[in-house]
Amino acid sequence: MKLLEERIRKDGILKEGNVLKVDNFLNHQMDIELFNEMGKEWKKLFADKNINKVLTIEASGIGIACIVAQYFNVPVVFAKKAQSINIDGEVYSTKIESFTHKKVYDVIVSKKYIGPEDHVLIIDDFLANGCALQGLIQLVEDAGATVEGIGIAIEKGFQQGGKIIRNKGIKLESLAIVDGMNPETGEIIFRKQKQSY
Amino acid sequence: MKLLEERIRKDGILKEGNVLKVDNFLNHQMDIELFNEMGKEWKKLFADKNINKVLTIEASGIGIACIVAQYFNVPVVFAKKAQSINIDGEVYSTKIESFTHKKVYDVIVSKKYIGPEDHVLIIDDFLANGCALQGLIQLVEDAGATVEGIGIAIEKGFQQGGKIIRNKGIKLESLAIVDGMNPETGEIIFRKQKQSY
Repeated sequence: MKLLEERIRKDGILKEGNVLKVDNFLNHQMDIELFNEMGKEWKKLFADKNINKVLTIEASGIGIACIVAQYFNVPVVFAKKAQSINIDGEVYSTKIESFTHKKVYDVIVSKKYIGPEDHVLIIDDFLANGCALQGLIQLVEDAGATVEGIGIAIEKGFQQGGKIIRNKGIKLESLAIVDGMNPETGEIIFRKQKQSY
Repeated sequence: MKLLEERIRKDGILKEGNVLKVDNFLNHQMDIELFNEMGKEWKKLFADKNINKVLTIEASGIGIACIVAQYFNVPVVFAKKAQSINIDGEVYSTKIESFTHKKVYDVIVSKKYIGPEDHVLIIDDFLANGCALQGLIQLVEDAGATVEGIGIAIEKGFQQGGKIIRNKGIKLESLAIVDGMNPETGEIIFRKQKQSY
């Protein structure tokens, strides 16, 4: 998506260790107009899918998910993180390892809000190694629901997450895929995508 | 706001200890159509205010804030919680005590995203004792920005937070104020408000 790629070039900050900071518009300050354009794009990309729920994970996925859900006229459910949580059997839970925070989280969704009747679009801001996303897929499968597709704002194409997910046969649409970046020159290489935005 | 009060009566779950669970539509599963109606209402209530930014706190405030921000055409910033964070001087920070989780959190906002030029609408899902809200007000004041108003979905009117905030002279608009509830009978008493929704 050209608009997102241009915004990443303009406001993204590259740091050593393949860190791309986009807190200017995506995950601390949030540009709601941009999120709306992303919503329109995913609505086009998933036009053939019968989606009745958007699933995301706290915290930075929530804003994008809520704006995007307007284009599908469906509610959003966000999975909750907790380092230690009293799991009482009324939730689906999985463990997700965060490399950023060097922690393992329990991630939960109430059984009341996801079930076999659900056709789910998973939305998140970032995809790198894919741990969080695989956790969300696991929750959907445990609930007997169907993953109709996954929408990611920014995929780090040089990490393995995207490949793992696509190899499962799931329709994964990342609006910008970063294949390389150079913090010294500020250069960012985006993967050329089939869609002409 | 009648629509919200009716929804609380329909889907809210009362528990001992003045607990009101609204995770069916507000803070786990999120009804985006309802959030849009809330946005329209706050736009009316704050029509006289010149707002250029919405501030909220992760996680359950984010979804409401993003939908509401569409009615003001402004970006959203969410304050981040961390139990222990490497504060490097580039953030405003404050401490917030969570009675639910029995923890004290550092809550931070980057200095890049709030400053003296900002006229802020603070949005959150719940107001009870007011600790989180007072922390957010503190962050805005530390940044030299102006709190133009506060929008809360559900206020527990029998706790002190609302009174404390209103006594500061801040325009606080809670769309539903619960003055009492009885988990045995399921009865909820809402405060009669000036606005006729």
